Amino acid sequence: MDRNAPIGVFDSGIGGLTVAREIMRQMPQERIVYFGDTARVPYGSKSQDTVLRYSRQIIRFLKTQGVKAIVIACNTASACALETVRQELDIPIIGVIYAGARTAAEATHNGKIGVIGTEATIRSGIYTREMQKLRPDIEVIGKPCPLFVPLVEEGLFHDSVTDEIASRYLSSLKEKYIDTLVMGCTHYPLLRSTLHRLMGDEVTLVNPAYETAVELKTLLRDMDLTRSSEDLERFSEENSRRAAAGEPILDPYQFFVSDRAENFTRFAKAILPKEVKDTKQINIEEY
Amino acid sequence: MDRNAPIGVFDSGIGGLTVAREIMRQMPQERIVYFGDTARVPYGSKSQDTVLRYSRQIIRFLKTQGVKAIVIACNTASACALETVRQELDIPIIGVIYAGARTAAEATHNGKIGVIGTEATIRSGIYTREMQKLRPDIEVIGKPCPLFVPLVEEGLFHDSVTDEIASRYLSSLKEKYIDTLVMGCTHYPLLRSTLHRLMGDEVTLVNPAYETAVELKTLLRDMDLTRSSEDLERFSEENSRRAAAGEPILDPYQFFVSDRAENFTRFAKAILPKEVKDTKQINIEEY
Repeated sequence: MDRNAPIGVFDSGIGGLTVAREIMRQMPQERIVYFGDTARVPYGSKSQDTVLRYSRQIIRFLKTQGVKAIVIACNTASACALETVRQELDIPIIGVIYAGARTAAEATHNGKIGVIGTEATIRSGIYTREMQKLRPDIEVIGKPCPLFVPLVEEGLFHDSVTDEIASRYLSSLKEKYIDTLVMGCTHYPLLRSTLHRLMGDEVTLVNPAYETAVELKTLLRDMDLTRSSEDLERFSEENSRRAAAGEPILDPYQFFVSDRAENFTRFAKAILPKEVKDTKQINIEEY
Repeated sequence: MDRNAPIGVFDSGIGGLTVAREIMRQMPQERIVYFGDTARVPYGSKSQDTVLRYSRQIIRFLKTQGVKAIVIACNTASACALETVRQELDIPIIGVIYAGARTAAEATHNGKIGVIGTEATIRSGIYTREMQKLRPDIEVIGKPCPLFVPLVEEGLFHDSVTDEIASRYLSSLKEKYIDTLVMGCTHYPLLRSTLHRLMGDEVTLVNPAYETAVELKTLLRDMDLTRSSEDLERFSEENSRRAAAGEPILDPYQFFVSDRAENFTRFAKAILPKEVKDTKQINIEEY
């Protein structure tokens, strides 16, 4: 395995950029190949078989890019595909669910945890299984919130309609007196202030994106797969040479999508700390 | 061409069943093969290239079923693909847009027509082009309503949130004093009562599903492609024989989807006048 190879990160669309952003922050030396399945988004309302088939295609594509490890930066794909593809793969792969489940299990005082996510994620029951493996006494209350993704994609982060819908979705969780809420979909942290206001200060909000980057960092270190400083230096020197020669610079971050790149690039520019130079469109069905 | 072959009808998902229902009502003797692309739904936020590629795959599948004509029962796919695929095909194909545009152009008195639909449909400008071909003086005001499909799929037909969202979407159309509104997405007729209440009695609502079935009937008659009564009789006799022998009955309506069939079958049973016996799942990417 080449420790200097990039990390592959994928999502059904743009939500996984919140995970890529955390990886960039916590491991600024690493290279990333990101794939967003914008042609087939959303995954949350689809069946496990379909999401598994799509995930396998994307993993085959990422392997053509020579990645050293893969992060499924999508709760639905993590719920539907991780266990199966992990057995099929010869490189390490992690999802966003385990890290979020562990953090929530450690954060709760009263043992009552709420999980909000897509229909597919909640239906899979995977957050409940992962948390109860760690602490069998934990009570997990799952609630699918299918309108949150369309509302976020419409930009209605702070809006009376989002308040009304969120208040309906969260009422059953409030009735159960949960003290911890997992934002089990990569879009949901964009609704954090609404969720916080409705749930109150006493409820801890868990964002799996952050926790997943921490888990990845540990994994790469333990497997001796952290990029070497020599390679980073070579990369910088090559780019200095290219800059001086007026040649195009090598970008440590590559972005691929399955539908038109424009919308994705616009969103990526808004969410990521570094400039997104260009995004390539590929036909994912060929993989 | 075999006049006794089935009609192919396709949509990104379930919405096109409203068109299939009109065909069943107006042409009860015809056989139908319906395909719903439930694995890749929705089309409305995707690019023209992607929707065109998906439509071509579906048409290749429908041709393996020996259809005599194809109806694109989806506004987005009609907007993005019809003009191109019509030139590639050796059987007649129609979309839902022309019939809706014609009806609206005939219905308006003040020449101001509103069109609501998905982002892709409105961006294509096809309703405007089709209406202005018929009456160049018509002013067409298009308005994308991206939250309507998720709201309908959540079953919020009569709900304060739907009222609020609809009232925002429709305000720019009301300000222009339109007298005709095209429901340019097959999901929207399910919001008819809300749309009617907000727009008022003086605005005519046009449902392209109904008009498309009328257009198809004329087309089949003109091309001598209406199913013969002899074939219908043979079919009935064969089924009587099968019933007597305890063999499975031949169904004039076949349903195929690209994701799990259960949800589709449930919706189809609710919307169609005839029982949906079973729905087959296929891998559309292989076509």
